[in-house]
Amino acid sequence: MANILLEHATIVTLDAEDRILFDADLAIQEDVVAAVGDIPPTFAPDERIDLQGRVVMPGLYNAHAHAAMTYARTYAEDMPLDRWFNEGIWRLESALTPDIVYWGTMLAIVEMIQGGIVGFADHYFHMERVAQAVEQTGVRANLAWAVFGSETGEVGITIPETVDFVKHWDGAASGRLRAMLGPHSPYMCPDAFLARTGAVAVREDVGIHIHASETAEQVQRSQDARDMSPIEFLAHRGLFETHTIVAHAIHASDVDLNILANKDVNVAQCPSTHMKYAMGVARVPEMLERGVNVALGTDGAGSSTALNLWREMRLAVLMQRQAHADATLLGGSQPLHMAGPNGARALGFDSTGVLSPGFAADLIVVNTLASHFQPVHNVTAALVWCTEPADVQDVMVAGRWLMRDRKLLTIDEQAILAGFQNALSEMQKTPLKQFQQYQA
Amino acid sequence: MANILLEHATIVTLDAEDRILFDADLAIQEDVVAAVGDIPPTFAPDERIDLQGRVVMPGLYNAHAHAAMTYARTYAEDMPLDRWFNEGIWRLESALTPDIVYWGTMLAIVEMIQGGIVGFADHYFHMERVAQAVEQTGVRANLAWAVFGSETGEVGITIPETVDFVKHWDGAASGRLRAMLGPHSPYMCPDAFLARTGAVAVREDVGIHIHASETAEQVQRSQDARDMSPIEFLAHRGLFETHTIVAHAIHASDVDLNILANKDVNVAQCPSTHMKYAMGVARVPEMLERGVNVALGTDGAGSSTALNLWREMRLAVLMQRQAHADATLLGGSQPLHMAGPNGARALGFDSTGVLSPGFAADLIVVNTLASHFQPVHNVTAALVWCTEPADVQDVMVAGRWLMRDRKLLTIDEQAILAGFQNALSEMQKTPLKQFQQYQA
Repeated sequence: MANILLEHATIVTLDAEDRILFDADLAIQEDVVAAVGDIPPTFAPDERIDLQGRVVMPGLYNAHAHAAMTYARTYAEDMPLDRWFNEGIWRLESALTPDIVYWGTMLAIVEMIQGGIVGFADHYFHMERVAQAVEQTGVRANLAWAVFGSETGEVGITIPETVDFVKHWDGAASGRLRAMLGPHSPYMCPDAFLARTGAVAVREDVGIHIHASETAEQVQRSQDARDMSPIEFLAHRGLFETHTIVAHAIHASDVDLNILANKDVNVAQCPSTHMKYAMGVARVPEMLERGVNVALGTDGAGSSTALNLWREMRLAVLMQRQAHADATLLGGSQPLHMAGPNGARALGFDSTGVLSPGFAADLIVVNTLASHFQPVHNVTAALVWCTEPADVQDVMVAGRWLMRDRKLLTIDEQAILAGFQNALSEMQKTPLKQFQQYQA
Repeated sequence: MANILLEHATIVTLDAEDRILFDADLAIQEDVVAAVGDIPPTFAPDERIDLQGRVVMPGLYNAHAHAAMTYARTYAEDMPLDRWFNEGIWRLESALTPDIVYWGTMLAIVEMIQGGIVGFADHYFHMERVAQAVEQTGVRANLAWAVFGSETGEVGITIPETVDFVKHWDGAASGRLRAMLGPHSPYMCPDAFLARTGAVAVREDVGIHIHASETAEQVQRSQDARDMSPIEFLAHRGLFETHTIVAHAIHASDVDLNILANKDVNVAQCPSTHMKYAMGVARVPEMLERGVNVALGTDGAGSSTALNLWREMRLAVLMQRQAHADATLLGGSQPLHMAGPNGARALGFDSTGVLSPGFAADLIVVNTLASHFQPVHNVTAALVWCTEPADVQDVMVAGRWLMRDRKLLTIDEQAILAGFQNALSEMQKTPLKQFQQYQA
């Protein structure tokens, strides 16, 4: 790592004042942003990079993913969620191997870096292989071993084993790794198992990443069984006492919204999946109003097909405007904040996600000179509505370039495609069986 | 033009049987597809192109655009349609020049070719300059001079002048150009003007491209004033007696849907604009059920921001699934058909939009080897859900390559960006005034 000066850029800070600087410089000292705009005369760059006509902005943080699920891309389409689980994914996952998790995650990291994602919150299996992929590629991640409790024990690994995983990896890879507990959901885990997870999380001071309230049916079943919504139940059983990411939270009551706000729960919205599988529209404007930290996730490629946060950013806006018949919802820089700083906060990285002195040098360069951006009357709107993954020119995490001029610097893409294809072929030799049952 | 053999491709024909051929060849003779799959031994190619790992499919047809409006990209965001018109576009358009129309259209054509769009239905002003851009660049287009009638005459050019425009350009550029009449809409044109347009269309046997039923308020005002919906009124006044494109048709009654079906009206859906400006959800599944030809449009960049039919394709599906809570809606190849063959039909080009012998050689090559497509369990789903404009590798219109390996062959992109910037600077010297008034 070196001292780098980015010159003549449009700098979209996403800081508290939402400052945008034109024809401005940004100084990077080792792994942090040293200065934005006013560069101290003492700053001695090893390298100067002219970024005229380019935007420098914080990298994007994917707050809910099952990265390895790239192997399931386009496998189960055009079906409701229950069939997607029962006929698609929960059959395919019966043939899961640690190898497909590793190679699937590597493929996902290629796609994420190429689209400007610098960190992701993952919720899947064989997470030590995911940690290995994160270490090798230089991205940030928050990893949670997914566990389905059962009456007789756990499917996957046990709670003590996931705690060991967290203890081992949290803070690893020079701080680029965080780790949390990953109980699947209140609809697939027994109540006692969830309560136990909550107690362990508090005792060991570790976070929790969980799915909740994805469909109206789930909420109804929870009400019938527990006389509480899934979110009320999670709060009641102590799962919101540490740092928490709740994925989806689509069907939330007023009580639920207050819980999410009061308990500082991070909510990850995955609009592609929500819309594609017709799951409903989360109450995002009300969440933001109450101060809930709403971030964006791509979910797994098995549902969303693409690990593209620019797409999620736009869909987050469009689905709310459609649902509420209000063209002013989630305007301005709100989508950028959800994909950037809110995501960093959800992932549990301090001093990340904003371009300000002292913050991590996690940033991307967007080439807004491309014809499909022109003219740029409004930089924020151009970023939100025009950017495609291919417009991301450079990606830096903690002061280290992971991509320059679209060339991946820590990854051999062809080797990954080959390794992935091998692992998939191996997986495809296993006869499939349904390993979990989802009730619509 | 020459005889070309595309070899070892995945060929997505979008023909009546929806055939997909793997590791197959496609023969192009001059400007048409000569053979698909079984290549006659007599076919003597001048050039053979290996497309292993690539998809060959029909080009995309943009069924409703205001191409020149690239100049208004990101100019009026986060506001309802009435403010978008009154505070944004209908002020900016008061400074319109033929030059900005030409350069704005050239910029739009760059973006469209780069994203796999081979033809567009345009509805704007100074259309002779648009025709010039189409001639030069080699794309297909169906052009309509937009006219706002008024009590005292027409704003823009007169009906006889637009008829002259149509007669002059329809069939020009070796058949790549079609032309139609372009009355703005039943909400902005006086009834007598519309009736006159309908009569002229029938007498001169020319088509009509018009906006209708964009908002619930428009429909209500039409009911109040005419005791008919906008679509009933257009039918009643004889505007559906020739080839017609109706843009939007969002708020359609059962009676309206039957009119659209019975009168063979082509409906252009512009999902980005519909969602972004919270205009409502068209009854697309019911239209398709009744046999209405539903195609997709990007609308102008002034509203949709991007001229990206892949995005429109996905939004067309997602918005319906959200609105109807049904994850099976518009599945399979339906989105590809809407953007391909249905669009070609809407534009009024016969024997175009399908890869079958005798059809026009309008095709695109998509590089599905890119990491974000892998693995391709389902070719159709991969095209619909994974393709971004940058994945379009090659574009051919009527047997002529317009782009090879992402390099534009008929366009000097840098010269266009410079010309566009000059024309925009000129335009920005004119003080703006509001030249039309929209009533919410």
